[in-house]
Amino acid sequence: MTSKLPAAARALAAQNLDALLLTPGPDLQYLTGFTHGHAYERLLALVLRAGGAARWICPTMNVDQVRPHAAGAAVVPWTDQATYHPALADALKGVSSLAFDDEARAAFLLDALAINPALKIAKASTVMRPLRIRKTADEIAALKVAADTVDQTIPQAIVLCKPGQTEADIDAALRAALLTRSPDQSVAFTIIAGGPNAAFPHHETARRPLEAGDVVILDYGTIEPTGYRSDITVTCSVGEPRDPDARKVYATVYAAQQAAIAAVRPGVTCQEIDRAARDVIAAAGYGDYFTHRTGHGLGLAGHEPPYMVAGNVLPLEEGMVFSIEPGIYLPGRFGVRLEVIVACGATGAVMINRHSAPELPIAR
Amino acid sequence: MTSKLPAAARALAAQNLDALLLTPGPDLQYLTGFTHGHAYERLLALVLRAGGAARWICPTMNVDQVRPHAAGAAVVPWTDQATYHPALADALKGVSSLAFDDEARAAFLLDALAINPALKIAKASTVMRPLRIRKTADEIAALKVAADTVDQTIPQAIVLCKPGQTEADIDAALRAALLTRSPDQSVAFTIIAGGPNAAFPHHETARRPLEAGDVVILDYGTIEPTGYRSDITVTCSVGEPRDPDARKVYATVYAAQQAAIAAVRPGVTCQEIDRAARDVIAAAGYGDYFTHRTGHGLGLAGHEPPYMVAGNVLPLEEGMVFSIEPGIYLPGRFGVRLEVIVACGATGAVMINRHSAPELPIAR
Repeated sequence: MTSKLPAAARALAAQNLDALLLTPGPDLQYLTGFTHGHAYERLLALVLRAGGAARWICPTMNVDQVRPHAAGAAVVPWTDQATYHPALADALKGVSSLAFDDEARAAFLLDALAINPALKIAKASTVMRPLRIRKTADEIAALKVAADTVDQTIPQAIVLCKPGQTEADIDAALRAALLTRSPDQSVAFTIIAGGPNAAFPHHETARRPLEAGDVVILDYGTIEPTGYRSDITVTCSVGEPRDPDARKVYATVYAAQQAAIAAVRPGVTCQEIDRAARDVIAAAGYGDYFTHRTGHGLGLAGHEPPYMVAGNVLPLEEGMVFSIEPGIYLPGRFGVRLEVIVACGATGAVMINRHSAPELPIAR
Repeated sequence: MTSKLPAAARALAAQNLDALLLTPGPDLQYLTGFTHGHAYERLLALVLRAGGAARWICPTMNVDQVRPHAAGAAVVPWTDQATYHPALADALKGVSSLAFDDEARAAFLLDALAINPALKIAKASTVMRPLRIRKTADEIAALKVAADTVDQTIPQAIVLCKPGQTEADIDAALRAALLTRSPDQSVAFTIIAGGPNAAFPHHETARRPLEAGDVVILDYGTIEPTGYRSDITVTCSVGEPRDPDARKVYATVYAAQQAAIAAVRPGVTCQEIDRAARDVIAAAGYGDYFTHRTGHGLGLAGHEPPYMVAGNVLPLEEGMVFSIEPGIYLPGRFGVRLEVIVACGATGAVMINRHSAPELPIAR
């Protein structure tokens, strides 16, 4: 890949920041293609100067993983015995203002501040978000590849929702189906929530066996070898739904999702997308039960800007990619959430997922 | 579980710190039993005052997960629309010095400093490590349960190392075996490194098929429902080893491991444990090829103090639990690493793992 370090260095200079420090994660992957996991308590970081000079601070054991992605930058190894502090101090010499990885361990930031208490720190996202928030055609193609994998597994996922199957059973079978469909990807996460558990938006998959009539939320995502991600949520019923309001709630969430998708075009603010979905749900009398934002950006990270949330006046631009995922959660009863990924195109939404189910799917 | 919040509050007071902020992770689990995953870009945190008052800053969607672990503390929910900043500002009112979670996102620390630029920050580990570093009898029992699971899978793991099997194949089969052995646990990580890949201590499992004569390193760990972890490394050969030095290198690493285990007793420093292993490897002429520390602590975290590394003059105390994992890595050829977990007992090492293989195991 072409290094994006020069673009990041220019962005630093434009913001009068001396340097950028990134640990393994989406920002570092975006700039250099480095895809390996983080190094836990060992500091592995790229330090880029506004003038363009760059170096990697690297545990000796990771040098061979870093070198293919060094992008011309020096690789400075440190040993367990030496610790990373001298390498960090050396990398920060002459740096007065530093953009620091939002997702890095706070301990590393405290180490940097211990080296230079006068260091002015900014969030790296102030530099990186403008670079990453509008996806290129190549990035959108990569996101569509990821979306295809999850789209194609939806019929299999729904069939798994049979009485007696536990959430954990479904989880294991779904992961296997995803890896069969696309062996080189990895599964980023799964949330399988049945019956009353579906009333928790971020329920963690558990051992409850499904019962006939349960409504089940299946929310899952994958990471392609490119690093780009999928994220989808479907809701189905184990046979005919037990709750008499299940179909009505489903139809409401679907209508809310469609309204938000219809609102997407350049210049519309993120909070207007949220509002479009929320108005439909409020009009149906469920306003108090849609307890989260309507969507989040997706790319190399599972959650990234832009966020579709009240108060976010950021106008959409062509190339922004995000989820539209309204939900209604009725405590003690059930929940419905429907999620697809869309891109903002020149004149409206471009669907990244192709899945669409206007009526509550029934698993039989 | 009994809340450990009062002990943490006393530790804060003893260090003249006003408050402690922890996000989901081992420290928070230790204090409250909260085991759920982190909330990504949403702040979910416990703020404990030195006087004992505590509150949770909690996304609305996680309130029901937090409440069973609140330990009498207030749960302050925030909505996506409101953002977490007002809740954080309120929680930090009157706080001049704050112990901040080492593993939390740096962005949250920058948010706290934006609220109060004069805030004095310490690493939470300065408060938490003294509480966690000596394991109780209950904790050691939990670590032995975790160790049993991995010990019992070793024969299965070795049998998987057949010519033509890829590292990824072995990984999948090993994960399945671990989950069969202990269905309620989760697999924390696996490193399967065959042939020349075994010369990278932190190789990431890939698609290389094993060849007859390869030396294979299998390093894996699990998390029991208690939160306590296992971590083991075995090295085997796919049939007779190709490299004429494989058995000698294996015997050297094994002898180094035994020397380090024999050195364990209260009062011996961590660097002496490292030295005991390193001296054996250096005497055999492989000193330059043992490129990492000898061990790390294990408990609710996969890597935690004490670290067996040159320069660490911390004396061992009864109840400390850590890995002994020397290795020799010959670039382009092969590598050998052997890891077990031990506790420091009153008079010497207490084995947490029961596995021991003095000679290079041959997979047939």
